[in-house]
Amino acid sequence: MPQPRIVSVGLSEVGRTDLTGRDLFSAALAEAFSGLPDPAELVDALYVGNQSETYEHQIMYGTLLAEWAGLTNVPAERVEGCAAAGALALRHAVEDVRQGTHDAVLACGVEKMTAGGTAGATDALSAAFDRALEQRSGITAPSQYALLAQRYLHEHGCTEEDLARIAVKNHRNAAQNPRAQFQREIDLDTVLDSDYIAPPLKLFDCAPVSDGAAAVLVTTPELADELGDAEDQLVAAGSGAAANNISVAERDLTFVEGANHAAETAYGQAGVEAADVDVAEVHDAFTVCEALLAESVGFAPRGKGIESALPPEERSEGWTDVELSTSGGLKARGHPIGATGIAQAVEAYEQLTGRAGDRQVEGADTAFLLNEGGVADAVTVAHVLRRAA
Amino acid sequence: MPQPRIVSVGLSEVGRTDLTGRDLFSAALAEAFSGLPDPAELVDALYVGNQSETYEHQIMYGTLLAEWAGLTNVPAERVEGCAAAGALALRHAVEDVRQGTHDAVLACGVEKMTAGGTAGATDALSAAFDRALEQRSGITAPSQYALLAQRYLHEHGCTEEDLARIAVKNHRNAAQNPRAQFQREIDLDTVLDSDYIAPPLKLFDCAPVSDGAAAVLVTTPELADELGDAEDQLVAAGSGAAANNISVAERDLTFVEGANHAAETAYGQAGVEAADVDVAEVHDAFTVCEALLAESVGFAPRGKGIESALPPEERSEGWTDVELSTSGGLKARGHPIGATGIAQAVEAYEQLTGRAGDRQVEGADTAFLLNEGGVADAVTVAHVLRRAA
Repeated sequence: MPQPRIVSVGLSEVGRTDLTGRDLFSAALAEAFSGLPDPAELVDALYVGNQSETYEHQIMYGTLLAEWAGLTNVPAERVEGCAAAGALALRHAVEDVRQGTHDAVLACGVEKMTAGGTAGATDALSAAFDRALEQRSGITAPSQYALLAQRYLHEHGCTEEDLARIAVKNHRNAAQNPRAQFQREIDLDTVLDSDYIAPPLKLFDCAPVSDGAAAVLVTTPELADELGDAEDQLVAAGSGAAANNISVAERDLTFVEGANHAAETAYGQAGVEAADVDVAEVHDAFTVCEALLAESVGFAPRGKGIESALPPEERSEGWTDVELSTSGGLKARGHPIGATGIAQAVEAYEQLTGRAGDRQVEGADTAFLLNEGGVADAVTVAHVLRRAA
Repeated sequence: MPQPRIVSVGLSEVGRTDLTGRDLFSAALAEAFSGLPDPAELVDALYVGNQSETYEHQIMYGTLLAEWAGLTNVPAERVEGCAAAGALALRHAVEDVRQGTHDAVLACGVEKMTAGGTAGATDALSAAFDRALEQRSGITAPSQYALLAQRYLHEHGCTEEDLARIAVKNHRNAAQNPRAQFQREIDLDTVLDSDYIAPPLKLFDCAPVSDGAAAVLVTTPELADELGDAEDQLVAAGSGAAANNISVAERDLTFVEGANHAAETAYGQAGVEAADVDVAEVHDAFTVCEALLAESVGFAPRGKGIESALPPEERSEGWTDVELSTSGGLKARGHPIGATGIAQAVEAYEQLTGRAGDRQVEGADTAFLLNEGGVADAVTVAHVLRRAA
């Protein structure tokens, strides 16, 4: 079976912008198509991750982007799993190429979150929770993750300062990433002195509201060889996905079962183990997520994921040497919901092709991505990407 | 390559109901799972077509339904292409099984349109048009299709009475379908005397606003043989999809290019021609659509699709013998947007397994489905289904 390749990537600016979703997509597309001869002729299908039609009163994003990209008579559709929508789009592209359905598929993510302000974004995101059984309690994303954080701190004897260190580390990484929403360092006091959003989570424990778009082109290895050098390409070696409880009820609050399942599927398909991963973008929508996911996907022992902010040599026994959220993560690179899963792949591309500048992890040849939608394992999607040469 | 089978189907009531989307799904699922041993253990993946999060302020419909169906650690996601969402879900299920990715996939569609009344539905549907370039003109689905209808009548010298005959025929079919929203016949005067919605389209030229859900289980032939008799199953022989212009600008208004492309792809994969099709559900959201699509997918010569209401022996030369919209179509069976593409497959199942009662087309062994999203060929999805025995 052919190993699909990521031959090019593109990312718009991420943050508060005056651009529409289509404009953001144009910026990402221009970069992804740059240097390719007749790219629109090449593309056989398009998938786009997009979370909310209410941000722009726009559905049919598949057709909208296909038309904008100059595609004709190809399948194009929007996929949605809240914040995991981007990785769902990437997974379709990878699987379509792996299975021989298509030779070249464009995977995109677009979100224009700032149109309705923070209240609008919070309202739109709350649609990811069960309308009949949860939304009526007024529960929001921060309040659900606060429940997980409370339990994590209680069970493992950790503190809010431990959580804050993850935010500090991710801002430090973002300061070295010219594509990040927040390109500045913060210190522990900045986090600890910030207002509670939902205790124990404070403002600086939470990812921001962001506009942004991203695109990657996935092709067969044969086509990839025609289009460029393998040193500029990645192999999409493995993927996995799972959808479990939409609510946080009746589950182990400190282990993300679906993420474990998705990661194991991706590792198995790629023929790697967690210990082989050099760089990983996990879904740090809230600081506690990075700790929970580091444990759930096999990087850290139970209760020790909170050490993700430490240099590898200072972490507890049982931790791998993985560097987490080198882009700055959702926390500081930014979190344009439907685009996040694709933006994670852009960071993997920069790291594995040696383009990551001051944040480059030397010798990185295996990257892991974990994208979540809803709370905990409502939707989880994992990818293993490797250097193609 | 294995020929996927549709082993079971389910359809909720269709129309104005007091049920939530999840309740409607439960009804469809109960029917689709009926008689299967441990169906939840069987299902490897779930796709759900759903158009609007605003109807119920609910996204993450993939996870919501997966949890309700008792599925654990399987991929589940929502796909969206406005009114073509259901067929996009079906196509993923069929392709996943065809390519060997999964052995059993549940394809669903859900829509709870009546929550916001007719104005709410019209507003939600208008999100399918280009926000920046079209929505601001106030254009809606009926007004866009009215442009196509005006052009069709003008070019082919037809009348509003010709359009009305399609509505009368589809209501006649629905009167014989216990699952239809409108189980009563109407006459030509009912259509012609009804109010204009957007000239030349009148109230009775338009499909209704409907709640409803549908589900089909697609499996490998090996698994299908274990689960039941081939006489109770269909072969999913071919599928195709295309996404073209989101707007009606700069196109031939009387030919749906994308539908032609999707149909030819599906016929080619199935090894059949248009003339082999016995029964077809096409996307008669407005009466003119049935005429346009009959021509675009090869059933009728250009300008003669309007004769779809006539018995085959009375139609112009060049028409096939196909019977169209035997369920009553979107017009009278009802049009729960995201569920429509799956509901079309339910009618094919009933026709090809001899369960269609008073509307049974004798000897039907090949069915064709065409599901559209947006206007004209914004998204078009085609399927060819055949008797398995």
